[in-house]
Amino acid sequence: MQTEQQESLLVIPLGGLEEVGLNMTIFQYADDLIIVDAGLMFPEEDMLGIDYVIPDFSYIIENKEKVKGIFVTHGHEDHTGALPFLLKEIKAPIFATPLTLALIKEKLKEHDITDIPLLKVKPRETIKIGVFEVEFLRVTHSIVDGVGLGIKTPLGLIVHTGDFKLDPTPVDGELMDLHKFSEYGERGTLLLLSDSTNAEKGGFTFSEKEVRRAFEDIFSKTAGRIIIATFASNIHRIQQVIDVAVQYGRKVIMCGRGIVSNAQIALDLGYLRIPTNTWIKLEDLRKVNDNEIVIIVTGSQGEPMSVMSRIAMNEHPHIKIKEGDIVILSARIIPGNERAIGRIINHLMRRGADVKYEKVSDIHVSGHASKEELKLMMNMVKPKYFIPIHGEYRFLKYHANLAKKSGIPEENIFILENGEVLEITESGISRNSKIQSGRIFIDGKGIGGVRDIVLRDRRRLAHDGVVIILIGIEKLTKKIVSGPEIISRGFIFEDASQDIINEVRALMAKTLFDIEDNIISDTSVIQTKLRSALKRYLRDTMDRRPMIIPIIMEV
Amino acid sequence: MQTEQQESLLVIPLGGLEEVGLNMTIFQYADDLIIVDAGLMFPEEDMLGIDYVIPDFSYIIENKEKVKGIFVTHGHEDHTGALPFLLKEIKAPIFATPLTLALIKEKLKEHDITDIPLLKVKPRETIKIGVFEVEFLRVTHSIVDGVGLGIKTPLGLIVHTGDFKLDPTPVDGELMDLHKFSEYGERGTLLLLSDSTNAEKGGFTFSEKEVRRAFEDIFSKTAGRIIIATFASNIHRIQQVIDVAVQYGRKVIMCGRGIVSNAQIALDLGYLRIPTNTWIKLEDLRKVNDNEIVIIVTGSQGEPMSVMSRIAMNEHPHIKIKEGDIVILSARIIPGNERAIGRIINHLMRRGADVKYEKVSDIHVSGHASKEELKLMMNMVKPKYFIPIHGEYRFLKYHANLAKKSGIPEENIFILENGEVLEITESGISRNSKIQSGRIFIDGKGIGGVRDIVLRDRRRLAHDGVVIILIGIEKLTKKIVSGPEIISRGFIFEDASQDIINEVRALMAKTLFDIEDNIISDTSVIQTKLRSALKRYLRDTMDRRPMIIPIIMEV
Repeated sequence: MQTEQQESLLVIPLGGLEEVGLNMTIFQYADDLIIVDAGLMFPEEDMLGIDYVIPDFSYIIENKEKVKGIFVTHGHEDHTGALPFLLKEIKAPIFATPLTLALIKEKLKEHDITDIPLLKVKPRETIKIGVFEVEFLRVTHSIVDGVGLGIKTPLGLIVHTGDFKLDPTPVDGELMDLHKFSEYGERGTLLLLSDSTNAEKGGFTFSEKEVRRAFEDIFSKTAGRIIIATFASNIHRIQQVIDVAVQYGRKVIMCGRGIVSNAQIALDLGYLRIPTNTWIKLEDLRKVNDNEIVIIVTGSQGEPMSVMSRIAMNEHPHIKIKEGDIVILSARIIPGNERAIGRIINHLMRRGADVKYEKVSDIHVSGHASKEELKLMMNMVKPKYFIPIHGEYRFLKYHANLAKKSGIPEENIFILENGEVLEITESGISRNSKIQSGRIFIDGKGIGGVRDIVLRDRRRLAHDGVVIILIGIEKLTKKIVSGPEIISRGFIFEDASQDIINEVRALMAKTLFDIEDNIISDTSVIQTKLRSALKRYLRDTMDRRPMIIPIIMEV
Repeated sequence: MQTEQQESLLVIPLGGLEEVGLNMTIFQYADDLIIVDAGLMFPEEDMLGIDYVIPDFSYIIENKEKVKGIFVTHGHEDHTGALPFLLKEIKAPIFATPLTLALIKEKLKEHDITDIPLLKVKPRETIKIGVFEVEFLRVTHSIVDGVGLGIKTPLGLIVHTGDFKLDPTPVDGELMDLHKFSEYGERGTLLLLSDSTNAEKGGFTFSEKEVRRAFEDIFSKTAGRIIIATFASNIHRIQQVIDVAVQYGRKVIMCGRGIVSNAQIALDLGYLRIPTNTWIKLEDLRKVNDNEIVIIVTGSQGEPMSVMSRIAMNEHPHIKIKEGDIVILSARIIPGNERAIGRIINHLMRRGADVKYEKVSDIHVSGHASKEELKLMMNMVKPKYFIPIHGEYRFLKYHANLAKKSGIPEENIFILENGEVLEITESGISRNSKIQSGRIFIDGKGIGGVRDIVLRDRRRLAHDGVVIILIGIEKLTKKIVSGPEIISRGFIFEDASQDIINEVRALMAKTLFDIEDNIISDTSVIQTKLRSALKRYLRDTMDRRPMIIPIIMEV
């Protein structure tokens, strides 16, 4: 609805509205475009062989000369993980708090990206960029140094919460900037975008400090070694382990690339406090008594190659589970990982460890606001318009319902889809167009695109394997001179089922027998014939549907 | 430790001790062998293409002439699902309660098995069979007509609980037979085998009747249609839906093969009570008002082809979701299914339904005993020896810990593995041998075995697809006359990455170039060469590891 007089403000989510992860939003006014976050998503179970998923940011590439800057709310992968891929396509400065920036720097280094200006911003600092003024607002979350953003635009104020919870007693004492959020409410906020991750959960999310009580309880009763798995980015959790370790006279070992690297970064920047002689090397594990050590490791989600998995499978070179060990999985069980985590718990218990996990012990709290906190946020900011962000549809819907209850008129609440353009003008707001959006699958180094058709083939192959039918024909005469040969993988156990292979070969030979003079003039017709004959046969006799590849080779 | 004078009693679990599902136990004394339950397991996520898993019962086949009978505690698939496969190998009568037997009969019919004696037993009846006397003891569980077993053996009494909870107010009024379980305690029980499924959970499991309150709450507030998904076997749950429907003046439609068939069986046997004109046909859905109907469907776990999935995807021919509909997923979210169920909830909500599920509403209770009930069972039965059954290791371990707390000496508690033989004699008890055991994968009709190697291939294919290298050689001279051709599936998106295919072809040609006179005398050497060259290349350039199949065809 743009007229010549009137510029409009566009709000375009590129990811994070149909999933957990991929968080990325664009704010655009005329020729100025800023990006908030650029996250990845870890693949779902049917995205076979995919390493991670990033948003399709074609729109940004098309508008690359308009991009003024990228603002990152915090250092979690679902907000930073797509940055290396984005920055291979466009060049723009990144604005973030010190720890967030340090984590991003590390990530870009892995991708050999070194030419991007990384600009440190402290909470309550404001960046003027194009028509926008972006203020950083401290929030509390499960990673240190998270912020929300207050964005002043020509058409009004926007508040973007980032990921947050209202932790009244954060581990580092850095409180959520309630005053600033309230100030935005006073000034009159046009639009609030708020974290929906926990919109399904009633009440308040517990403070990170509550975990300390559970730790103290366990540490005070334990004479053996304590092994704790948590997310490498959860510096607060690591700090609490260290604090309780010191309190109970234990040294700390960290094990796992991510945790060591993150702890070192946090330590260098002053976000982690470790008394001298507390952090010792893995090699010194033998030198300390069982009741003098805590080992912090990666792998709380049962990731197959993680330190925790290797310990559970007795494949870790230095850490062998023994009777009396306590293992604490201090993290949420992410949906989809239940079975992998369950298997690890079984292995650990079988080897004699006592295992504490979410279901049986209070060794984890969420980093996201529950319903009461979400309502408080809306009360503080008092936005005219509201967009629930960060979550699958049901979380957005719950959050929208909360907004309605909190007094925001239904017509001012927008559950958007990724790629949908919300257009705000002086005269109103409308949702009426969609830009190209979606998910890009990254497999390995991201070379040789993986599209839906590739995944469909992988699913097919995964389900019943592959059967290859091989026929040789003479180049000039097109006469069959060899085959049919049958090769299969992932289909049946050939050693024990040679008769099935023989039957398949006989069926293929019979199908070819009808062909006049054994001359294959139209390869694709014969291929289709062979494929459909075999498909029907295998479905009827075995109820299996392998991928069938008929190959007719000219020689 | 068997002597000539002394026969021993063997207790052999064939499944159910390392997993949820596959429940099956053998009791053997000299030449008499009885089987308790024969369950299946639904495949885990890495068992690609597998339809279900059954226990390896080679031991039973080897001892088939000793098998006197099969006792089935209740009609759930994890206790009955392996019966058709077992009964293709051996013939033995099945003893079970009427509903259990009716469900088994249906299952055997599907497999064209009609020659097995199916013998109805009522609770408190005793079957004398060989040296054993097996008494049926009523238990409460999430299916009607469940029992535990009291087994009198020459060496003492055994109690097998089956699956149970201590429901003080069961829907059908049929109480758990506390008196009989206590009587076994009085008489002196040698061995208790008890259900560990919920041994992780503290307190008591709520009564099935508690679900009624949640239903009443929803029904009383709903003006739209109500759609409820639950397990087809949960007759009590279906009964409660019907009762509340009648109370609030609604008719009932059932939709889904399993639910209709089970409801009909239960109705015929008198286990389900439906007032006249309450159960109406799906075709009549149009004739009733929204506030006069409840639809009970299958698919509470998000199974892709289920009624619930088809409704959510708007692919059901008769049931289309509209604003005002309430959908209730009245079942546990089974670990591994979270994402599938989450997707269905998103779809339903997007189409305007309000969805009630385990996390946000009390529309489900478990069918298994929690810690306090498990301790009560041990207090009643007072066994000398104890084996926790039905569960992954950690559940067995929790249950064993409870047994210890309940006063059973640690040395009398046995956490067994599948296939482990527990041998009881007059003079004592020992675990010292293992029979062949494990899991059999059933894919399709179960023809053409699927072993680990097949699954390994499927995983490989699933991960990065397959690349086929095709070379033709002359039959007599072994000279290369054709190729290399490259064919791939599930590897890359070929249309957009033809350059990669070209590079692969060039690399393969180069690898062949070194071969003297183009003569391939040893096929397998060349295949290995091609495979390892390509493997290295794809790993280094793309970080991918597809399955590579070099085919050298003689023509």
